[in-house]
Amino acid sequence: MSSVGIVTPQSLHFSEPLPLSSGASLADYTLVYETYGTLNADRSNAVLICHALNASHHVAGMYEGVDGSKNVGWWDNMVGPGKPLDTDRFFVIGVNNLGSCFGSTGPMHPNPATGKPYGADFPVVTVEDWVHSQARLADALGIRQFAAVMGGSLGGMQALSWSMIFPERLRHCIVIASTAKLSAQNIAFNDVARQSILTDPDFHGGDFYAHGVVPKRGLRVARMIGHITYLSDDSMAEKFGRELRNGGYQFGFGIDFEIESYLRYQGDKFSEYFDANTYLLITKALDYFDPAKDYGDDLTKALHNTQAQFLLVSFTTDWRFSPERSREIVQALVQNKRKVSYAEIDAPHGHDAFLLEDKRYMNTVRAYYDKVWQEIDRRHA
Amino acid sequence: MSSVGIVTPQSLHFSEPLPLSSGASLADYTLVYETYGTLNADRSNAVLICHALNASHHVAGMYEGVDGSKNVGWWDNMVGPGKPLDTDRFFVIGVNNLGSCFGSTGPMHPNPATGKPYGADFPVVTVEDWVHSQARLADALGIRQFAAVMGGSLGGMQALSWSMIFPERLRHCIVIASTAKLSAQNIAFNDVARQSILTDPDFHGGDFYAHGVVPKRGLRVARMIGHITYLSDDSMAEKFGRELRNGGYQFGFGIDFEIESYLRYQGDKFSEYFDANTYLLITKALDYFDPAKDYGDDLTKALHNTQAQFLLVSFTTDWRFSPERSREIVQALVQNKRKVSYAEIDAPHGHDAFLLEDKRYMNTVRAYYDKVWQEIDRRHA
Repeated sequence: MSSVGIVTPQSLHFSEPLPLSSGASLADYTLVYETYGTLNADRSNAVLICHALNASHHVAGMYEGVDGSKNVGWWDNMVGPGKPLDTDRFFVIGVNNLGSCFGSTGPMHPNPATGKPYGADFPVVTVEDWVHSQARLADALGIRQFAAVMGGSLGGMQALSWSMIFPERLRHCIVIASTAKLSAQNIAFNDVARQSILTDPDFHGGDFYAHGVVPKRGLRVARMIGHITYLSDDSMAEKFGRELRNGGYQFGFGIDFEIESYLRYQGDKFSEYFDANTYLLITKALDYFDPAKDYGDDLTKALHNTQAQFLLVSFTTDWRFSPERSREIVQALVQNKRKVSYAEIDAPHGHDAFLLEDKRYMNTVRAYYDKVWQEIDRRHA
Repeated sequence: MSSVGIVTPQSLHFSEPLPLSSGASLADYTLVYETYGTLNADRSNAVLICHALNASHHVAGMYEGVDGSKNVGWWDNMVGPGKPLDTDRFFVIGVNNLGSCFGSTGPMHPNPATGKPYGADFPVVTVEDWVHSQARLADALGIRQFAAVMGGSLGGMQALSWSMIFPERLRHCIVIASTAKLSAQNIAFNDVARQSILTDPDFHGGDFYAHGVVPKRGLRVARMIGHITYLSDDSMAEKFGRELRNGGYQFGFGIDFEIESYLRYQGDKFSEYFDANTYLLITKALDYFDPAKDYGDDLTKALHNTQAQFLLVSFTTDWRFSPERSREIVQALVQNKRKVSYAEIDAPHGHDAFLLEDKRYMNTVRAYYDKVWQEIDRRHA
């Protein structure tokens, strides 16, 4: 197994307006993406990777001239030559979502209507909006049907949405550590994070770009909250426990415990590079995703038109999107007589597990892609 | 069952310095408290109630001339004539802890050394410090030995601490929805809440009193975070689910979901009356409590000197202080051959359950106090 090596992001501009779920539309927009591997002659080996909250199109490989360890793609353990999603077989596309802060059109870019950064005027985008924009990218790349669309967490929601909006455009749908809708508790955590940003005096109603400041305090607390929900209680206990930073209690409000040091560091780092408006937009997309809503809360009906085969994966200690949430999707698919594989991985790392190395997890995905590949191979035989 | 009726808080000033765990000391201080019921002739029927995070000495009854429904004591369902802790039998004391913002000496009071509010100079106080201050109140009230010391959550830590620091001064120790130490995840939630307050520009390093402002934004987010951890995922789902406030999505960052409305309201309300320095102090007391720390993390050794009999209660859906945490205490007590009763109540309300009406819970406590009362009665027979 090796890396895809040095990669270069590409971008495509779309000048046809994109109508959005909210009723608004984006006049024009740019999508930044990366590809790995080679598209075969009949264009049947393309796989689309959808990203989660703070990730991007940079799925695998590394950028030239930048310290490699810091610039490895976020799913490099999953995607590459000989890896579970084998780029010697598949043509893999990573795309940055609209509203993000890593290159695709987002709130920090000029609003064509005013010439100033969108800021608070960037429209609220949904998972479905992202899927429509990704479909246009697929059109532009000449891909009529994906071998698979795959994602974890918020990325899993996009994969699931693909199977409903464009049932004939994907043969396989891989949904990892995800859910068909957020629980009240999930929404609650997202809203506290948003409130932390919205009430930061440096947020300036979303137009902080014009003030030359960044609502770092709000972003920092938002990230700390998020981070707690990514880890399991057990893994936090094992990794940090009640370890003290300086041997004894400090009797002040500096750092006593290692977990405090870790979380504050994560928060600080995040607030240095992530855009506050993007954080608001992405958490809202999470909250709004609820495909069964238009079907009287009946997920089975919502998934009725799907044609893909499915792989769902969940992790036992993921309390953010617990296995129960994946099982609900599996059950709705089974009731529709879809072909579904489901793996519930006994992993200690909570929600974060979907990004981490775990033999059973990786082998599950690898075995599934072997099957996907055999189907492609058989066509060519 | 009826209420203890109209109650009046009392206060006592202590002019002897109180040495603290930190090495600092409080030159003098005032404790505010309430009592319900009558102390019997041999002073054997006194029960001390220790309060949790945002509660106070106002355990039961109501204040004269104030709208009753808003001024009912926080444990009024537990304490009163004919209630589980029956004030026709017991003399019950509720005391406000040092550092609080409900009357006992705290950060908003003048520092005798400067004449200005303590603010950030109020010393960090621990559960053990509170117990020592409560013991002086008991001395002043002529109570050598409590029939019981009782508390939930942080209050349970104080009850447990009483049994270790003053083993001969309580016959029963009632510890509800508590733990012998916080987990890394508990500390993490507390630290995010603290960071939210500490980084609010209106906090002014703890000296906001002098600036005529209150770090409301920080307190608000802190409370929202706390509130999520008090409720169970299930009870939030049942109470709020994905209910929308205005029928459809708003595609903005106002209120979409009822859970958002509820949490923001809780946060707003809290930020109106609670002191930010108190919040910091109380969460720190929670984090620091770890009686096994000085015994090589051996809780059995830490509890070796206890003499009381114990009742422990936990709630199945309490993920803040889960039943497992109570069972650890039970096990350590059993290993010390203490008399221990333990009830694990199957209740849906999460950590909040310890404050709520639940028949099995109330009956458990009632039955236990019947036993405590029979012991007292027998002495008098």
